[in-house]
Amino acid sequence: MSVTSPSPFETLFSRKAQDLPGLRVGDPRKSAELISFFAGFPDRDSLPKESVISATKTALEREGEWALQYGHGLGDRKLAGLLRDKLDRDFGIRADVDQILITAGASQAIGLAIDTLVDWGDVILTEAPTWMGAVRMFSNAGARAIGIPVDKHGTNVEALESTLADLKSQGITPKFIYVIPNFQNPSGVSTTLERRMRIIELAHEYGTLIFEDDAYADLRYSGEKIPPIHALDKHGATLYFSTLSKTLGAGMRLGWVVAHPSLIAKMAVLKVDGSTNVFGAHVAAEWIPEHLDNHIQQLVGIYRTRRDLMLDALEKHFPEGATWTTPEGGFFIWVTLPEVLDTTAMAPQARERGVEYLPGKTCFVDGSGDNMLRLSYSFARDEEIEPGIRILGEIIHGELAESGRGPNNT
Amino acid sequence: MSVTSPSPFETLFSRKAQDLPGLRVGDPRKSAELISFFAGFPDRDSLPKESVISATKTALEREGEWALQYGHGLGDRKLAGLLRDKLDRDFGIRADVDQILITAGASQAIGLAIDTLVDWGDVILTEAPTWMGAVRMFSNAGARAIGIPVDKHGTNVEALESTLADLKSQGITPKFIYVIPNFQNPSGVSTTLERRMRIIELAHEYGTLIFEDDAYADLRYSGEKIPPIHALDKHGATLYFSTLSKTLGAGMRLGWVVAHPSLIAKMAVLKVDGSTNVFGAHVAAEWIPEHLDNHIQQLVGIYRTRRDLMLDALEKHFPEGATWTTPEGGFFIWVTLPEVLDTTAMAPQARERGVEYLPGKTCFVDGSGDNMLRLSYSFARDEEIEPGIRILGEIIHGELAESGRGPNNT
Repeated sequence: MSVTSPSPFETLFSRKAQDLPGLRVGDPRKSAELISFFAGFPDRDSLPKESVISATKTALEREGEWALQYGHGLGDRKLAGLLRDKLDRDFGIRADVDQILITAGASQAIGLAIDTLVDWGDVILTEAPTWMGAVRMFSNAGARAIGIPVDKHGTNVEALESTLADLKSQGITPKFIYVIPNFQNPSGVSTTLERRMRIIELAHEYGTLIFEDDAYADLRYSGEKIPPIHALDKHGATLYFSTLSKTLGAGMRLGWVVAHPSLIAKMAVLKVDGSTNVFGAHVAAEWIPEHLDNHIQQLVGIYRTRRDLMLDALEKHFPEGATWTTPEGGFFIWVTLPEVLDTTAMAPQARERGVEYLPGKTCFVDGSGDNMLRLSYSFARDEEIEPGIRILGEIIHGELAESGRGPNNT
Repeated sequence: MSVTSPSPFETLFSRKAQDLPGLRVGDPRKSAELISFFAGFPDRDSLPKESVISATKTALEREGEWALQYGHGLGDRKLAGLLRDKLDRDFGIRADVDQILITAGASQAIGLAIDTLVDWGDVILTEAPTWMGAVRMFSNAGARAIGIPVDKHGTNVEALESTLADLKSQGITPKFIYVIPNFQNPSGVSTTLERRMRIIELAHEYGTLIFEDDAYADLRYSGEKIPPIHALDKHGATLYFSTLSKTLGAGMRLGWVVAHPSLIAKMAVLKVDGSTNVFGAHVAAEWIPEHLDNHIQQLVGIYRTRRDLMLDALEKHFPEGATWTTPEGGFFIWVTLPEVLDTTAMAPQARERGVEYLPGKTCFVDGSGDNMLRLSYSFARDEEIEPGIRILGEIIHGELAESGRGPNNT
């Protein structure tokens, strides 16, 4: 696809289409050819093929005419009911079923929420670093995104407060604060209960909304569960986003948002792609009651092992001066290398040696993070983790030596 | 859901969210309780449940880890390859597989194309009447949509030319011309070959793009096949939209757009919901080679019968002064009643008597069409068609009598 040549239709492009980057085609089949620490792809070997086949059979035999037909404007209502029950049982989130909009992954829901709130040039707040997909969406929408640092206790609420105060003094109300309180993507850290409460207070005080992205909610491997912001927020100002991508399977493209009815109503009208994946929703609604809890338990075991393998390998192979986080769940470890290193420049070298990771730069709205990288332990197999980290360690050692900062030069 | 009460977050809404209508929850299960001529829902009894079960089994047993995983950024490439081959074989459309973006129905593709081209206030051209979903999307995007009349030969190209000339004299280039050349939704008419050629010439002359929506391409019941605009357009300025919704099943939410690589690249970056329905795409790619052609043949028989039943019933029950179109394919008959009647006002009466249809007003960007209505013959069962049309005929006769224009008063 010759996307590098200029388009003959350039003069017709919308403002948002003009400055887009080239298409980077993400493809897990390609990643599978490498030792891949690159993406938040779920483990491929535990995907529940057999039980999905039998759930499909049951769903289609029982009400196949509705599984293959157009569906409800808010997404399948049986699935929404199951999700409501689970959100209440596991996370203390109370919602009417009509407050749940089913979407193509949490990502579509976040896109719709941005559409509902952001005009070109509007200010929004987001953690720094944050999920690279959100960085893309903020940019697509022309949002002026301001980063709030994340430290080992999660969102830095002092920085949040001073940013809000500063904006207020300029007469600016940000449209929302985007946070990932559990096992943050990409940093792996979780925001403490106290800070969650403070985020709610600040959002209320400054009249803005909270986007709570909780894609990894079910995948905690250690530490105590902390209630989600949505369950703590008495003002109804939190939009809660989550997904079946990390449990049932990303290929289902089933996510959701729980929000105030007035926001759901707007998002549903702006959602022009019909009821979300009606077929997959019927299969999921059949699959969830019988399989979801057990499957989550299995996944927790798998990912805990991989996390531990990666932490051990980092200890063994990464140089002094490198630091990394210890996630209590989710898919990601965030690594900070000595400042002299550039993880974007290093990536092709790693790929040549058969290993891929995510350069940190992609996770910041201001393009910082040059010496940082995200490692995902979800997709590579157990036996690939140590060799992959060893190779990255060797590359880093080599780069340090070349820069005159290596162990041989100090 | 109390969406009528004002939102506490109204001050945060984006421009596009401010003027949205309330959410009208379309739901085929509700429509099934009535004799429904309302929507473009496919026939429920012929949806291929059994063959989809077995395609799912084969797809998941063979490569289930990829069917449940994240997918390619442009959508499943095996499905795209099958679609490319079919488009070439059946419609003479030549495209690289990378010129095909898989989307959640054709509707999502149209939404993405609008996003790529339209800034708030931009002018676009569309047929009048046209698909109500497109009317909604143009409005969501803040497009200034100008209607080009449709007559019994399709898009009125003289009106198109004079509108283009008039806009040019004001220094305005519309971003695109949206047309549905086959069995137009809602009018049922098809645009002649000569007019298709003229549309291409005019688009080229005036420097704009063509959106060709061909959702019903496979469902022709009489008359000669006419090549799609995309196959005739030597300038590459046509975006071709279609879907599996009317053949395999709407619940799959699988559609696509074929377009110039530079447009596909933009749309794919603006598409933030991940690879489209990876699970359903794998099932479809398994199902298509073995079943699609036969299934289309079966559907052509079913819908031809329903169309004929409806045309007969209209002849029998609708009053003099009412006129309607005779579609050669697709799902819709367009009815024009005497001008004194208001089909929006009449709709609740019809629903009370167990029949629903689409008031014509929803199909015009300028809100005209008061005395028109769209009848879909796709969803109601054979034996419901005559009774449903009889009831509508009675209501129309009654309304005419009341207005002093009925047969008893003339």
